[in-house]
Amino acid sequence: MTAEESQAVTMEAAVPDLATPVAVKPPGVVVIGAGFGGLEVAKALGRAKIGVTLIDRHNHHLFQPLLYQVATAALSASEIAEPARRILWRYRSVDVVLGTVVGVDRQARMVELDDGTRIPFSHLVVATGARTGYFGHDEWAEFAPGLKTLHDAQAIRSRLLMTFEKAEKATDPEEQRRLMTIAVIGGGPTGVELAGSIGELRRHTLVKDFRNIRTADARVLLVEAGPRVLPGFSEDLSRYALRSLEALGVSVRTGTTVEHIGPGELRFGGERLQAGLVIWAAGVAASPLGAALGVATDRAGRVPVDQTLRVPGAPDIFAIGDIAAFTNADGKLLPGLAQVAKQQGGHLGRGLARLIMTGRPLTPFVYRSRGNTAIIGRHAAVFEQGRFVLKGFLAWSAWALIHVYLLVGFQHRLTVSIHWLWRYLTYERGARIIRPED
Amino acid sequence: MTAEESQAVTMEAAVPDLATPVAVKPPGVVVIGAGFGGLEVAKALGRAKIGVTLIDRHNHHLFQPLLYQVATAALSASEIAEPARRILWRYRSVDVVLGTVVGVDRQARMVELDDGTRIPFSHLVVATGARTGYFGHDEWAEFAPGLKTLHDAQAIRSRLLMTFEKAEKATDPEEQRRLMTIAVIGGGPTGVELAGSIGELRRHTLVKDFRNIRTADARVLLVEAGPRVLPGFSEDLSRYALRSLEALGVSVRTGTTVEHIGPGELRFGGERLQAGLVIWAAGVAASPLGAALGVATDRAGRVPVDQTLRVPGAPDIFAIGDIAAFTNADGKLLPGLAQVAKQQGGHLGRGLARLIMTGRPLTPFVYRSRGNTAIIGRHAAVFEQGRFVLKGFLAWSAWALIHVYLLVGFQHRLTVSIHWLWRYLTYERGARIIRPED
Repeated sequence: MTAEESQAVTMEAAVPDLATPVAVKPPGVVVIGAGFGGLEVAKALGRAKIGVTLIDRHNHHLFQPLLYQVATAALSASEIAEPARRILWRYRSVDVVLGTVVGVDRQARMVELDDGTRIPFSHLVVATGARTGYFGHDEWAEFAPGLKTLHDAQAIRSRLLMTFEKAEKATDPEEQRRLMTIAVIGGGPTGVELAGSIGELRRHTLVKDFRNIRTADARVLLVEAGPRVLPGFSEDLSRYALRSLEALGVSVRTGTTVEHIGPGELRFGGERLQAGLVIWAAGVAASPLGAALGVATDRAGRVPVDQTLRVPGAPDIFAIGDIAAFTNADGKLLPGLAQVAKQQGGHLGRGLARLIMTGRPLTPFVYRSRGNTAIIGRHAAVFEQGRFVLKGFLAWSAWALIHVYLLVGFQHRLTVSIHWLWRYLTYERGARIIRPED
Repeated sequence: MTAEESQAVTMEAAVPDLATPVAVKPPGVVVIGAGFGGLEVAKALGRAKIGVTLIDRHNHHLFQPLLYQVATAALSASEIAEPARRILWRYRSVDVVLGTVVGVDRQARMVELDDGTRIPFSHLVVATGARTGYFGHDEWAEFAPGLKTLHDAQAIRSRLLMTFEKAEKATDPEEQRRLMTIAVIGGGPTGVELAGSIGELRRHTLVKDFRNIRTADARVLLVEAGPRVLPGFSEDLSRYALRSLEALGVSVRTGTTVEHIGPGELRFGGERLQAGLVIWAAGVAASPLGAALGVATDRAGRVPVDQTLRVPGAPDIFAIGDIAAFTNADGKLLPGLAQVAKQQGGHLGRGLARLIMTGRPLTPFVYRSRGNTAIIGRHAAVFEQGRFVLKGFLAWSAWALIHVYLLVGFQHRLTVSIHWLWRYLTYERGARIIRPED
């Protein structure tokens, strides 16, 4: 950043001189996080040719809704990840910085990166999302990986395939049984999708590969603390999801709280289970950056925001997506969904553009649900929007079409479609690579 | 392995009882390595329903000729890797074991894995290939990664993309120049393919992504110790490759020996170069397993074999592919090529099947070259078979068609075709993921 630029940054809400070549950017807005929310902010501001610096610790935007498919060897990592630079290159006023934010200096209006770089901001949008949360049991992370990043997905894929490899080699039937026991903790959409996908993987995809084990006999267990799976959906859909999981041979334990997770071991409801793999899908915690803002966060680490997505007491700092605690008109917190982040990002980006260009104040954000969806397996999915409910084949087809459409980039849409069609016809999964440890 | 099976193993050259169900395999042949050679041996023996144990330290077969495309973000890892189990599942007498061989006990006829497993053999085929070799300078490995495994390719891809990210962030022009200097050591096919592909990447793919640097200005350097690039081809094709590289803006230094490689630093011909990335494509060494056989290996660590691919003095041990030193009728050693390994594997597999089933002795191996090929860039490739020579667009198209055809699995052929077509039309590369370090 040149001296001119850093100076310009201090001009709050500067009206950009549109005649100025892009090289001398009218800087100002810093967005942290290239997720669904952050990207929308950057795009809306970029459309208005306002200078934006988008910071992310990865070089790619991740299409999280399909992360479970990377974890279960159906898709490869690059199919659900797109470089943030690539997505934003047309927006010439948007700068992308690869870096990890370690602090926010509200006084000096500076964001601090781990390499010591300080980036000034006129407005700051925090969109760093959520990470896996263990409800105070961080020691479980080692034995029960969560699913939030590409790294997580590849690690789960390797452990999943590896437990079958070990079982194939094992000579003790007891040990084989243990290795072929896979437990998923958490009955929300991610847990249900993982358990269903693993159920299909072990029954259809892997079954021909091994000689000494019958992978179809592998035990897949879904443990949920609440009274039913998919608690965010209506009771009818929960029952349908339960039936679909059981049809895949997945054992579902509801009303069961996990008491302990150790190496290859799980305790719940007084019972002790030896497992080859335990996956944690039971909870998320907001990104730790909320705390770094110096405002009081809620129990889950989220930053409370007002109706304009502003952090109270910090007129130029905003939070959107999973890290923000936004209370809807009905008094409920908005859920941590891609569509919430996306709508908030678009709304805030357009609002900030108006504010910076014309001085018009921000307007309240109103969430419009496009419906919730979860997939259990082949021909089995649920969709719910208000009173409109869909399940089975139709919901499953709609889910696939919508998710292919939402992927970034024509190329990914095409290859994901091919992989899905191929999997549908043959039960094959093309990404069965165990990550080399060397 | 059951007691019955281990017993059966000791029956050398046992004729399998075809009426016996597959569960009680007539064991015997152990193949180490699921590369081009090892797979062909396993398939030929599998076709004859002879018991085979194929051991590899990875769960996948790797299509090495396209590894440079993973290293340069054009393809994703799973597109050039296929689980060995998947490739061999139809051959019911072939067992696949994921494991690392640490020793061969010739007396006891046992292969030893790193986890302590001992696998008996009646015949042993060593097909463990080659690894990157630094000519006694193993300390260079840290600063100049080689390209032999998926892990290598992903590491090079991350370092390659990362050096541009760092340059974008750097404020010192001197430092930017250093970071945007990429040196490839070795002017054989791999070095030429890497340098050409990086030349195109920086000029066409990345050029729109950055704001502070012009990636097209990045310096790409190819250093070759011998008098010309592609020394395995005719002089005319070497000159063509040199011209094609120079057209891509790659600086080629022939007759230049590397004297020192340090962190971000390279010394050759008395010159000192600061570089953002150095890639080593200058040499390979045979897999260390050759030494473990207890026979004298040649300078490159290869195991000398006779005309039937047998290790001298070890009537039941064979070596094929890059680990074997096979002297052709013309007195020359066969080169380390996929087609050599493949032909040797097929020949040996069929020969062993005949030997085991009927007792007929092994026949000498005769290599039939299908021609050599190397790709420099768009519309630029070379092909040579004896006196028949092809270069330019035709060679390039033929190269692409043949490589897609040779890929394992219809799905990979289709998606690789799509990625290539897409890249051809748009210069885009879909796998630009920097591997997360967390």
